[in-house]
Amino acid sequence: MFAYPGRLNDRLTSTDAMLAVFAPQATVQRMLDVEAALAHALGQAGVIPADAVAPIEAACHADRIDADALTAAAASAGNLAIPLVKQLTARVAEHAPEAAKYVHWGATSQDIIDSGAVLQLRDALDLIETGLDALCGVLARQAAAYRDTPMIGRTWLQQALPITLGLKFAQWLDALERHRERLGQLRGRALALQFGGAAGTLASLGEKAQPVAQALAQALALPLPNVPWHTQRDRVAEAATVLGLLTGTLGKIARDVSLQMQTEIGELAEPSSSGKGGSSTMPHKRNPVGCAAALTAAARVPALVATMLAAMVQEHERALGGWQAEWETLPDIARLCAGALANVTDIAEGLDVDTARLSANLDMTRGLILGEAVMLALGSTLGRLAAHELVEHASREAIRSGRTLRQVLEENPEVARALDTLQLDALFDPANYSGQARQFVDAVLARHRAARA
Amino acid sequence: MFAYPGRLNDRLTSTDAMLAVFAPQATVQRMLDVEAALAHALGQAGVIPADAVAPIEAACHADRIDADALTAAAASAGNLAIPLVKQLTARVAEHAPEAAKYVHWGATSQDIIDSGAVLQLRDALDLIETGLDALCGVLARQAAAYRDTPMIGRTWLQQALPITLGLKFAQWLDALERHRERLGQLRGRALALQFGGAAGTLASLGEKAQPVAQALAQALALPLPNVPWHTQRDRVAEAATVLGLLTGTLGKIARDVSLQMQTEIGELAEPSSSGKGGSSTMPHKRNPVGCAAALTAAARVPALVATMLAAMVQEHERALGGWQAEWETLPDIARLCAGALANVTDIAEGLDVDTARLSANLDMTRGLILGEAVMLALGSTLGRLAAHELVEHASREAIRSGRTLRQVLEENPEVARALDTLQLDALFDPANYSGQARQFVDAVLARHRAARA
Amino acid sequence: MFAYPGRLNDRLTSTDAMLAVFAPQATVQRMLDVEAALAHALGQAGVIPADAVAPIEAACHADRIDADALTAAAASAGNLAIPLVKQLTARVAEHAPEAAKYVHWGATSQDIIDSGAVLQLRDALDLIETGLDALCGVLARQAAAYRDTPMIGRTWLQQALPITLGLKFAQWLDALERHRERLGQLRGRALALQFGGAAGTLASLGEKAQPVAQALAQALALPLPNVPWHTQRDRVAEAATVLGLLTGTLGKIARDVSLQMQTEIGELAEPSSSGKGGSSTMPHKRNPVGCAAALTAAARVPALVATMLAAMVQEHERALGGWQAEWETLPDIARLCAGALANVTDIAEGLDVDTARLSANLDMTRGLILGEAVMLALGSTLGRLAAHELVEHASREAIRSGRTLRQVLEENPEVARALDTLQLDALFDPANYSGQARQFVDAVLARHRAARA
Amino acid sequence: MFAYPGRLNDRLTSTDAMLAVFAPQATVQRMLDVEAALAHALGQAGVIPADAVAPIEAACHADRIDADALTAAAASAGNLAIPLVKQLTARVAEHAPEAAKYVHWGATSQDIIDSGAVLQLRDALDLIETGLDALCGVLARQAAAYRDTPMIGRTWLQQALPITLGLKFAQWLDALERHRERLGQLRGRALALQFGGAAGTLASLGEKAQPVAQALAQALALPLPNVPWHTQRDRVAEAATVLGLLTGTLGKIARDVSLQMQTEIGELAEPSSSGKGGSSTMPHKRNPVGCAAALTAAARVPALVATMLAAMVQEHERALGGWQAEWETLPDIARLCAGALANVTDIAEGLDVDTARLSANLDMTRGLILGEAVMLALGSTLGRLAAHELVEHASREAIRSGRTLRQVLEENPEVARALDTLQLDALFDPANYSGQARQFVDAVLARHRAARA
Repeated sequence: MFAYPGRLNDRLTSTDAMLAVFAPQATVQRMLDVEAALAHALGQAGVIPADAVAPIEAACHADRIDADALTAAAASAGNLAIPLVKQLTARVAEHAPEAAKYVHWGATSQDIIDSGAVLQLRDALDLIETGLDALCGVLARQAAAYRDTPMIGRTWLQQALPITLGLKFAQWLDALERHRERLGQLRGRALALQFGGAAGTLASLGEKAQPVAQALAQALALPLPNVPWHTQRDRVAEAATVLGLLTGTLGKIARDVSLQMQTEIGELAEPSSSGKGGSSTMPHKRNPVGCAAALTAAARVPALVATMLAAMVQEHERALGGWQAEWETLPDIARLCAGALANVTDIAEGLDVDTARLSANLDMTRGLILGEAVMLALGSTLGRLAAHELVEHASREAIRSGRTLRQVLEENPEVARALDTLQLDALFDPANYSGQARQFVDAVLARHRAARA
Repeated sequence: MFAYPGRLNDRLTSTDAMLAVFAPQATVQRMLDVEAALAHALGQAGVIPADAVAPIEAACHADRIDADALTAAAASAGNLAIPLVKQLTARVAEHAPEAAKYVHWGATSQDIIDSGAVLQLRDALDLIETGLDALCGVLARQAAAYRDTPMIGRTWLQQALPITLGLKFAQWLDALERHRERLGQLRGRALALQFGGAAGTLASLGEKAQPVAQALAQALALPLPNVPWHTQRDRVAEAATVLGLLTGTLGKIARDVSLQMQTEIGELAEPSSSGKGGSSTMPHKRNPVGCAAALTAAARVPALVATMLAAMVQEHERALGGWQAEWETLPDIARLCAGALANVTDIAEGLDVDTARLSANLDMTRGLILGEAVMLALGSTLGRLAAHELVEHASREAIRSGRTLRQVLEENPEVARALDTLQLDALFDPANYSGQARQFVDAVLARHRAARA
Repeated sequence: MFAYPGRLNDRLTSTDAMLAVFAPQATVQRMLDVEAALAHALGQAGVIPADAVAPIEAACHADRIDADALTAAAASAGNLAIPLVKQLTARVAEHAPEAAKYVHWGATSQDIIDSGAVLQLRDALDLIETGLDALCGVLARQAAAYRDTPMIGRTWLQQALPITLGLKFAQWLDALERHRERLGQLRGRALALQFGGAAGTLASLGEKAQPVAQALAQALALPLPNVPWHTQRDRVAEAATVLGLLTGTLGKIARDVSLQMQTEIGELAEPSSSGKGGSSTMPHKRNPVGCAAALTAAARVPALVATMLAAMVQEHERALGGWQAEWETLPDIARLCAGALANVTDIAEGLDVDTARLSANLDMTRGLILGEAVMLALGSTLGRLAAHELVEHASREAIRSGRTLRQVLEENPEVARALDTLQLDALFDPANYSGQARQFVDAVLARHRAARA
Repeated sequence: MFAYPGRLNDRLTSTDAMLAVFAPQATVQRMLDVEAALAHALGQAGVIPADAVAPIEAACHADRIDADALTAAAASAGNLAIPLVKQLTARVAEHAPEAAKYVHWGATSQDIIDSGAVLQLRDALDLIETGLDALCGVLARQAAAYRDTPMIGRTWLQQALPITLGLKFAQWLDALERHRERLGQLRGRALALQFGGAAGTLASLGEKAQPVAQALAQALALPLPNVPWHTQRDRVAEAATVLGLLTGTLGKIARDVSLQMQTEIGELAEPSSSGKGGSSTMPHKRNPVGCAAALTAAARVPALVATMLAAMVQEHERALGGWQAEWETLPDIARLCAGALANVTDIAEGLDVDTARLSANLDMTRGLILGEAVMLALGSTLGRLAAHELVEHASREAIRSGRTLRQVLEENPEVARALDTLQLDALFDPANYSGQARQFVDAVLARHRAARA
């Protein structure tokens, strides 16, 4: 009654746009795009008759390919290109038997599969870069909006010292700006035509090799590299690593948000407008569904990147296993990265910030989080180590007795000698102890704006 | 015009039977099987009205589920079970609005998803064990058939000493027998019902919890564990590791076969009857397509196993990211393992053995591979180190001069004193220097037979 | 002035006992143990003169090996055994030049390295199993002690429904009992002698091969396998996976404890007696240092397991890269697993349980966590879906208005019709809604005791 | 009697120079360098008394640190910096008790550990870049020297079509040039000062924060980033990925060389002058020991990179497990990469090329490898598919009958019509069918020279 998609859970961890880039039909179409461009280039260079080009181009449509026959034959052939070329040739031959002779002329399977995959990668990087730009914009706005909002900083999952919410956003943004830089540099290396023929020498094209290669590169709008890269896989492996690095940062953001969404912390929440995260049995819960998607990506992608790196050890002029290991792995990485990016962007954009909880949590330790402020104020008089011990002792006493740190300290004559009431007032206001938080936010925002100027 | 499958390359690296086990429709059906069994168990325990059972069971068919709506809603809900229950409830309500109230009663999403996945895992393990049995049988026959066929053993990719082809097969078999043992032990731990309700206490079923759980376990023919295991993931992670270990051995076999298929070695070849491995541009080639599939699996599975292990660190009573990371990862492992197994079985069964090349390759070093035999024969007289140096020197001289090792040795007076012509004849026959190869084959075959007795 | 250890951070993530098992000197000593046992076996079988045995055995002491020369030569030789045999031979020759001829007779480098590594693995598994037994015992006591202590269960990092602290401990214990089972089964497969000579046939020992192999196995108290396993690495790879699975469970425990140690939750704390976790700048903090060590292990081990699995694809009769990749990887896995185990055991044993916080956290949602209890009570009257909607609506209203769920529900006429005050009292007592928690604890404890009976 | 190093096998897979960079003593020294520079910066900014600086600087020597006490205390403290600061303070206090108060002022443990690690990373990248430059130079020379030397190209481990040895070298070089580019871009992101204080705000330094940070950055010659990056780990994770990518290419080179070193192929050999690769039992063998080291690195590094990526998901302002997982992982990656690089450089520099075997291997298929040349020559007349079938058929016949492809083809009337004897002579000369090999080599060399101009 209903048609089932490829993998049921893909929509939980990716975007429809990225799923479309790597959909089976798109994969076939991208290979056919390469075959069509090849026919065009061969015609332009005079390798094949001019009137053979149009019939080949006309047949290069994925909806004319029998997918079931294709995949069945691919299992015997060892890759998709061999049976695809057979089907394409048959389609061309239906109307133009002469033209059918020139299908795939001069190319090898890997030229078609790799160049098709590079076209998909270009589409994928376009989506990622657009999405990343949007996320950076959102975070820049949020960092500015919450530039001065104090919150507790946490280390080792323990309350530590005050920071600001804007600083947290700015640090995420700062990392994402570096990812933008990486993506830009990646493009120049990863998006290269693959065209080398059976052993990477383009031997079958004789003296027409360079003109055909140039015309093919132009037709696909892909740079022509110095030399084919059939078993030099750093180009695609780098794409995996850059997406892996981005996914790591997205996972970090999701980890923070989900921890701050805990019932007991309640400082942040995923946007409720999205209707996400209802529980089937606990009606009051609002689950961090978007964070879960990003964390799932961050859990799966590192190992997939390892597969891409391990697969670089490819034999001679065409690999046995390593190349094939890339085929589903790089798309999985791109899908998961895109899903993490979209989910984190939705979260960042619609984030519910509970300033009352942010403030209440700052008071939770009864002043212990400002111990360092006091310790340093005392340190100039007593020395760092002695001040450290004094405050450590006072903190334990505060915990033991249930009093505030200030109450305990005020009873201490050494403290009384060193600090008066006004000084203690100032020391115990968290807003006075966020250090360079504002300046850091401003520096990150300045860089963000400069990168777009 | 044509329908496209989920992932184009899956048929290159898996089997249709295993693809069917984890097909989207099968995944949904297995979850519905759990819902149907739950309704049955609830009715049997008197938790829900007896006449509510049949309408629920009747609606539990995957072809009645709108897959597109399901996956779209799952992205918001965070998992497939929530929208599936909604659709199922709606289907039941069409004909039996009263019964619809009792759909999914007492269960949580993870109960349905995990128990459904365990049913799929059981199917997968059935396929793997059947396939492994077949492969063991084939290898036992091949080990017996080639028990006495000498071939060169290779270490560091260099020719070393003679072994027998039967020994190679027996060593593969010996490892596979251990995998059979592991699979048997795995079943007892991995195939367990998941049923705990929202926080793993079955609280919503009150005093009927145990009867319902027992009836549900019985209906699904799954053992009822001591306690739910929502965030104790060693059961499924172990399944991943055992399949990962098996895939490693299959990869080792494929590596050996593909190396022995090299044009320059030519001792073995994948069966030609299968029509596999034709090259689109080099008509004379017969590519090791089956080996490539197994090596692809062996390149991809280790990282996927790492994902399953890393995902074990799950939070509290239900995880955020770790559980979700399993969903597509364990099926990928099973698919790849099954593909490797099928390909290696095909190869083992129809393996072309070129005994002439096996024999010719034994002569390639002009006797150098029997240097150890001579060295040891001399060692008892000259001491191991002196004999080592003598034969090392003679070997270099043989290489330098292009003569056979025997020719060089015969000129050496120390050798002449120690060994006569007949002794040298015997020492330079590779069949005399395969050591315990036959005994090892016999021991492995005896164990193979004993395991089936 | 001071001697530096191998890796500074190893003591943060391992135990001194496990570090000793894999210390460089121990590695050399274990290889020498194999050489000594080999001399003994060769003497016993009459392969070498009886009076050659004692001088070889006497020289087999790691403190007589020049480690710097050993490792420098190993880099040229490709492994440690070759230069070790040279040094050993030289040591023997100092006092017994005749005996020196018989050092390493019949063996290959890999026999020595692998059998030595198996001896280390046996020591490692002994430590792990002893440690695991201790942890199981501790958790069994804790599960019994806190069998009836209510706490909030959490899913998706959100408060869900009540469970008991004993149930949490029991679920950890249940997984650990399965790991004990796995370790027991592993021993039978992993702890096998490696002894095959240069190509795995023991050819150089002629008819004495089996007697020598048996005597060697007996001397080292290692089972003699059917056949050498130089390139069948499932034995050691399985050891990696079993330790990886255990580490995953230990990481899960550490994740839970560290989350419950958060300042804002404060239910559990690592033992303070250990003096661990002081912060250099925040004297009030008590960092979850033991949890961090276990989580570090759980972050590092999965990838190391992947390396072991990927390394199984080994060439022919001796590998090029795969075998060598195991050398430092399996010890790292054992070290990290042991460290995680020791840290989690310390934590479990001295765990500070704050029952006041456990109780206070149950009240944090003003009754929302008992929505399911109410929903199910209402469900039998109104139907599951209607009850779900009613409670979901009331929950939102409670959140909006800041009242308790009970207050909101009591105003609802449908609720009033269905439930009286006494029923509501009972429904809103968390201790009444822990379902099968106690029974589950009892079942796990029964199994724990049975496994030791 | 002898001192043992940290890990016995490290010298097999790394270089002494890189081992020195990450030696325990160097790690401590680098942290002390940061402490010394901090004292200097604090003095310069007037935060601490000018006369406190020199005593602190004077004490910052690793040989004054008790390593055993350090590592024992680190296990309790959770990191090395806390006990290191204690020891350092005690050392300073011995002679300058006043100065001792100012040790570590304003910094947090992670500032010291991360900045120290960045200094080590800088040293490591210096070594890698110098080594990579050397390897590129060697390969450029080899590519030029063998620009015109025909050899067989291999795909799927089968002989395919002729290429040139120079092309193979040029393709390796082309990938390595991209790695140089990546390393250059990495430096700008990865080599950044870490300095943020306890929660990343530098709060304890008040208004002196920026001057101190700037002076510290200047003293260490590290760029001062916009904002501290305590839990934004893309900087160090990227270092891991770039080294991982380089290691992948080095593994590919080692795979090719080791395959070409096979006894049955014998085209290339590792330099014999190095004395590497002798076998303890087979005196005639020359094992590819350098390739094995590079392949070991390529087998281990991908998983270690995955650990670095997975560890990016760090909590809040300081992580629990993720940060700690980096400590031994990044050094392992650098060590293995350096070892692979050094081994591949040695191999490339001293590579034995056996031109006779290169030539003999081209003849091994009796002309079948030139089937494509003939097929394409025929294709213009007969059409690609028909020519493909004709040559495929002739190839099978040649294989079946043991004749050369030329002999079979000459009997075919279609061939006779299309091609005369002179044309066949030319078609069956491999040197005439290397296509663009020379032009590709020239393009790669031109780029290599341009990158250095």
